[in-house]
This record gives sequence, structure tokens and C-alpha cells, in this order.
Amino acid sequence: MQDYQYNKEELIADAENHRYADLKEKLTHLNEVDVADFIGALPATQVMIVFGLLEKEVAADVFANLPIENQEQLINSLDDQQLSTIIEDLSVDDAVDMIGELPANIVRKVLRNATPETRQMINHFLRYPDDSVGSIMTSEFVDLKRELTIKEAIDRIRHTGKDKETISTCYVTDQEHHLEGTASIKDLLLASDEQRVEDVMEKDVISVATTDDQEVAARLFNKYDFVALPVVDAENRLVGIVTVDDAVDVMEDETTEDIEKMAALQPSEKPYLKTSVMEMAKHRILWLLILMISGMITGIILERFTDAFVAIPLLVTFIPMLTDTGGNAGSQSSALIIRGLAVGEVSPHDWLKIVWKELRVSIIVGAALAAVNYVRIVITYKNISSMIAFTVSLTMFFTVILAKLIGGILPLVAKKIHVDPAIMAAPLITTIVDAMSLIIYFSIAGKLLGV
Amino acid sequence: MQDYQYNKEELIADAENHRYADLKEKLTHLNEVDVADFIGALPATQVMIVFGLLEKEVAADVFANLPIENQEQLINSLDDQQLSTIIEDLSVDDAVDMIGELPANIVRKVLRNATPETRQMINHFLRYPDDSVGSIMTSEFVDLKRELTIKEAIDRIRHTGKDKETISTCYVTDQEHHLEGTASIKDLLLASDEQRVEDVMEKDVISVATTDDQEVAARLFNKYDFVALPVVDAENRLVGIVTVDDAVDVMEDETTEDIEKMAALQPSEKPYLKTSVMEMAKHRILWLLILMISGMITGIILERFTDAFVAIPLLVTFIPMLTDTGGNAGSQSSALIIRGLAVGEVSPHDWLKIVWKELRVSIIVGAALAAVNYVRIVITYKNISSMIAFTVSLTMFFTVILAKLIGGILPLVAKKIHVDPAIMAAPLITTIVDAMSLIIYFSIAGKLLGV
Repeated sequence: MQDYQYNKEELIADAENHRYADLKEKLTHLNEVDVADFIGALPATQVMIVFGLLEKEVAADVFANLPIENQEQLINSLDDQQLSTIIEDLSVDDAVDMIGELPANIVRKVLRNATPETRQMINHFLRYPDDSVGSIMTSEFVDLKRELTIKEAIDRIRHTGKDKETISTCYVTDQEHHLEGTASIKDLLLASDEQRVEDVMEKDVISVATTDDQEVAARLFNKYDFVALPVVDAENRLVGIVTVDDAVDVMEDETTEDIEKMAALQPSEKPYLKTSVMEMAKHRILWLLILMISGMITGIILERFTDAFVAIPLLVTFIPMLTDTGGNAGSQSSALIIRGLAVGEVSPHDWLKIVWKELRVSIIVGAALAAVNYVRIVITYKNISSMIAFTVSLTMFFTVILAKLIGGILPLVAKKIHVDPAIMAAPLITTIVDAMSLIIYFSIAGKLLGV
Repeated sequence: MQDYQYNKEELIADAENHRYADLKEKLTHLNEVDVADFIGALPATQVMIVFGLLEKEVAADVFANLPIENQEQLINSLDDQQLSTIIEDLSVDDAVDMIGELPANIVRKVLRNATPETRQMINHFLRYPDDSVGSIMTSEFVDLKRELTIKEAIDRIRHTGKDKETISTCYVTDQEHHLEGTASIKDLLLASDEQRVEDVMEKDVISVATTDDQEVAARLFNKYDFVALPVVDAENRLVGIVTVDDAVDVMEDETTEDIEKMAALQPSEKPYLKTSVMEMAKHRILWLLILMISGMITGIILERFTDAFVAIPLLVTFIPMLTDTGGNAGSQSSALIIRGLAVGEVSPHDWLKIVWKELRVSIIVGAALAAVNYVRIVITYKNISSMIAFTVSLTMFFTVILAKLIGGILPLVAKKIHVDPAIMAAPLITTIVDAMSLIIYFSIAGKLLGV
């Protein structure tokens, strides 16, 4: 995979050797995201100096992309005038994100340097719950009135557009700010000057509520290919917009959360390298404990069959293969269903189709694995009863079927009872299938081998 | 989770009862994605009729969103004139997507009804490899010349913008189509009429090559919050753009692929409910076979310790708990690293930090699990030697440490040798850790219990 990387080492060398004129020139050619990445890699003593080299227009954008430690450091070091300029240039959603992570005394300095309007806005936005649409929206959108002519509308955009998050979609509201429609900049530009906004606006608008789960908004972006989505309050008044870049972040975070849950981890929002050892241990231990204790049940089941495996110790040696294959077969099915649920391709509604499909697939797969297994045991152990090989293979067959049915159904059950389906993945499925496969194994052994 | 759903049942009832006037009116209020979803749910006999109700402006958009079976059906039923209109209205990327999936005779009908220019364009685009940027780009972008005034540029956009995929970002090229810069519609509108495009354009443009992996492009969108990204050929000539909606699809597909690989599935591009039983069995069986055969090694290891577990059969009952906990502990670490690699938060570079962190985390987690386990065994089995409890707990401790180190390192090794890290997940880790934990278990049992 080719990497599109700026030359970070070169820039760091420039900073270390105080080649600030060179550095300043190079930074003007860099995307703000990369500038922030570079500043984040600098020693603390350099951060303030390098940040000072930035042009005023990009300072706030770079600031918004900095790691929280650097934001905190800069807020401490900047004078009130400088800080105030940056805060006013930040998008509300970026400012709110940052404030949510800063310690209280730093937050006070930020709010003290914001204008009363910005302060009020930030305080308002901070009240939305963490995973709600309100928490990721921004209030910097273009609003138009329906009776404006296209020319007036475009003039308005040209005059007010500077501080807006996007002008690609404009929003049409009435006097009480109720959302009446949307007009894309393309539709506006393509219309003739004397037409009115209401002639080109789209009246059937899909919008979300401030209190909706942010995942709902993200799914809508994915489904309808939106670039921005209007957010309304309980009275259908337009209060903000969510832009696609924030929706993409939500999707990526939700995916990470799913993958973590599927691996029996309690989700963490911090990147791996920034999570402390104690935090990490905390996020891992709960599920391991639960699963370990559940795994003890398997031990209790095994105990009941002590006589059988003392009589034929060889039976023990097939246990890991049988339980692992069962676990893998079940996890395959559960992973497909969990992902299908997440992207909206399947729903609990489809349970009968899923059971029927898993049943047929598992019969084919189980039979194939059982056959390979039988042949292999007969070849490897020439001097044992072929009944042992048959016992193991028959167990394999039934275990695969059972595992795939359980793996296919449990995520649907979870969804139905409003539990996150992602926990019904490999670890839990394996634990359940383990116990069942051993019961099948020794029941068949009892019948066929008389132990 | 609230659902934003149109009333599909009502629409289907309208179609069944031939209330076409009603239906036509209702469809005008629906997003094209939903119209396509609705048509996809109709019986074949209704598809053509309902598609005929659509207004000309939305027909191509709806068509682009239909399932491939319906596209094929419509291409068969539409007359040349109707088909030609739709094909010319499709985006090149949508047309190319569709043609990639259609049978050859249908493709011929499509190409016959395209204008020579469109036909040439489609043929050209079809030549890009499946996962390349070229395969997801579109050629419908706005290009400007640097010496145009803002007024001329906006006029040009107003005249040519209709069929463009986006006008939010416009592209500045020289006479030979070399990419010289980009100008957002915002920058253009906010500038004064007599300024020139070159005064407002961004000269430091991040672009991708047609031959780049589409995942590279998707990552750039995520990193830089782009809405569109220019695509250049080997001579830096602008040949297309990728828009964020296509990048989002790529991200989602790549995530699905990763989750499938992590669950020992061979990735499939089809949704669960549309994949046939045989296909599904095929995608599942390979890895199950590989893992089953690898699992046999664990059996061979166990055989060497037959004497030990015949002497103390109780030892057998702890095997599933020990191997499962080891597998789970290892999968936790591997899932974190696989995801970290996918989103670019860690790299093979960081291996020493990762080993050091996993070591410390696993010591804490392993010690806690071992302690719980010890207490539980001593309480449950009052009449056995506490040495057995100690053996199990010590094995637990070392297994967790080993599992987490293996789980943390293997994805990095895979990345380093250009294998997809996603295969180093639960199934493979479990198989490896199983064998190791059993060796640890019976070695400790041999030392402490003398078996």
C-alpha cells in the first residue's frame, strides 16, 4: 500500500535546528491535518514556537486537529487575544469536542476568552448526550428563506458563507426556523437569477433529531450518500447540521467498538498506544473473568465423563480439535450475522431464512470436515477401532451444525432484546459450543464405544 | 435505535392494487435510494410498470441504485430510446459498476445504446483493476483554467455543472490536463468577480493515482475530511475524481472484509441473504479445514501426556477453560492490533512498545485470573491437593502472558511480510495458543505433581 506521507523527519530536523524561515515556508504547503500531526510529534518546548509560525487563516484548523495535550499546552501559553481569535475561528463541534476532554481550569480559560455568543452556544451544545446527534452537529450552516430570488440567495451565500461548515447544501427555514427544505449550491447556481429558492428547493427532506443516536445519522449518510444532514429539535426547528466527515468518524468509531466487543474487550475510545497499562487491563479483565467462570461449567461436564476417558485416554486428545472447530464454525456464522445487522443487510425478521441457510451450509461443511477427519484418524492410528474414528467424526458433524445454528441465532436474539449483537461473537460462542460439543462427544462415545 | 423508514408495505399495496396515480405521487416524495429499494421488493411483473411511473429526472438515479437483477430485467424490457437516455444520465462510475456484473449479452445491449463517447469512456474505465482507484472514480468533474476570472469561472460552472458529480470542488488544469490546483465553490463564491481562479486556488493538492489501491484513497478521505479527491495518471494528468460517498462504501467493504477474515471466512462481496448455500459453504470450509488440521497437532501433543492425565483425570477437566481463556486473551490483543493497523494508529515500527505494553497488561490480567481460579478450585474441590489448584493457576498465568504476546506480535509480523493482518485473529491465535498452553500445563504438572 502506497503511503501519502509528508516528510516529517525533515520538518522535525528544521525545528530542532531553528531553521524557522524554511520551516514556515514548508508548512504553508502542508495540509492542516499534517501540520497538526507534525506539531504533535514535536517536543513540548517547540510546540509554541512552531504554532506561532502558522498563518492566521490556518491556525484554528491546525489547532482543531492537535492532540488534546497540545491543545491544553497552547491554551495555557497563548495570551487572551490570540486564544480568543482561535476560539472564534473554531467550528462549534470542534470546540465542544475539545472542551469535553479538557480539565476544568483550562475550560474556564477557554470560555473566558470566547465571546458571549460563542460561550452560550458551546454551553448549549455541551448539554447533548455523548452519543447523540446533538454532540456531533455544528450550527454553522447557511440558511435561506424560500421567497428569496436565486440572485439574492447567492449574494447571501457570498456574504455569509465564510464561516459556514459547508455551503454545498443550504437550508430553507421559515420565520420560526422550521426546516422547510434544502437547496444544493448546484441547484442554486444552475437556476436562473430571477427564479426563487422555493422553485428549486427539495421539500422532502430527510432530517435527524438532536436526541437521535449518532449511529442513526451515520447510517443515513451511508445509505443516501449525503454530504450533510440537517438536525432538528422536537418542534422541527433547524438547530444544526452534521457533515459527512463527522459521520465517517462515527462509522469508524462504531466499527472499532464492534470489533472490540467481538473480541471480548470493553470498548475504549483511546488509541492503543495512548491507553495506559492499567486502563487496558481493566478493559480486558471483565470478559476474560466471565468467560473463564463460564468455562468452568465445561470442566464440570467433563468430570461426569471421567470413566470414559480413563477407559479410552485417546478420546481426550481429540477434545481441543473438536471444541476449536466448533468454536470456529460458530464464530464464522455469528460474525456474518453481526456484520449483517450492523450494516442493515439482515434483521431479526429474517431469522427463519437464516436458520434454514445455516442448517444447509453446516450440513455440507460438517460432512466435509467429518470425512477428512475420519480418513485422517484411520490412517494415523492403524491399530485402533475404526469406531473411535467414527465417534470423533460424527461428533464433528453434529458440533458444526449446532455451532452454526447457535452462531447464526444468538446475534439476532441479542438485537431483538436490545443487547449489542457484537458480544455474541467468537468468545461467547466458543464457550457455549465447547460445553455442547463435549456432551455430544461423550454421549456418542457412550453409545458407540460402550464407555 | 430509531429507524428512518418510508412505508414500504403501503407502496407495495398500491402497486398490487394498481393505484398507480397515488403511487406516482407518493414516489415523487421519496429519496431515489428508497424508490430503488421499493422497486427491488416488487414482483418482476410490476418492476417495469412502476419504473415507468418515475419522472425522467430521477429515473437514472433510481436505476443506478437498483439490485443488479432488476437492472438486467429493465435493460431487457426498455426500448433503445429509453435505455439510451438512462445510460447517458448515469455517472460513469455507476455504469462501470453495473457493467462489471452484467452477463455479456446484456452488456452488448447497453453499449450499443450508449453514445460513442460514453462507450469509449466505459471501455476505458473497465480496464482499471478491481480494487484500484480507477475502478471507483468518475470523470464528471468541473475543470477550470487558472487565468479565468471568478465571474467567468462561476459562469462556466453554471453552464457545465449539470452533469457533474460534484461542483463543491473544482479542478484547475493546464492545456495538457495536468492538475495545477483545486478551487472549492466556497472560495470561488467568496472571492470578488474580477479576481482570477489562480488567486484563490489551492496549489498544494493531495491526489491519488488511478493504479493506487482504493483503500489508500478511502484512508485519505478519513484522514483529511475530503469531500472529493482528484485522480491523476502517471503523467499527473487529471483523469477523474473520487467522491466521499464512494470512499465510504470502500471503507465499509474493507471493514466487512476484515471482520470476515478475522472470523476465518474467505471474504465475499455479496450480502448474506443473497449468497447461495454452496458459495457460503465454499467460503467457510477452507479455513475450518486448515484450522482443524492444525488442531490435530494439539492432539498429538496431548497424546504425549496420556500417563499424566490417566494418573490424575481431574487435570483433563481444566483443559477447555485453560485453552479458551488463552485463546480469548490472545484474541483481545490481536483484535486491538489488527484494528490499530487498519486505522493507522499503530505500525510494525511500534513493535517494541507493543510487546512491552502487552507484557505488563498480561501480567496484571494473568495474575488476577490465576488468583480467582486458585480460590475457586480450592473451594470447589475440598479433598484434592492444593498443588493441583496451583498447577492450574500457574498455567493460567503463563498462558495469558504468552497468548497476549503472540496476539500482539503476529498481526505486526503479517503486516511486515505483506500478509493481511486480519487473518492473525481469534481462530489462528486460539489454535497456536492451545498447543502452547497444553505444553505449559503438563510441564508444570510434571514438576509439581510428579506425573
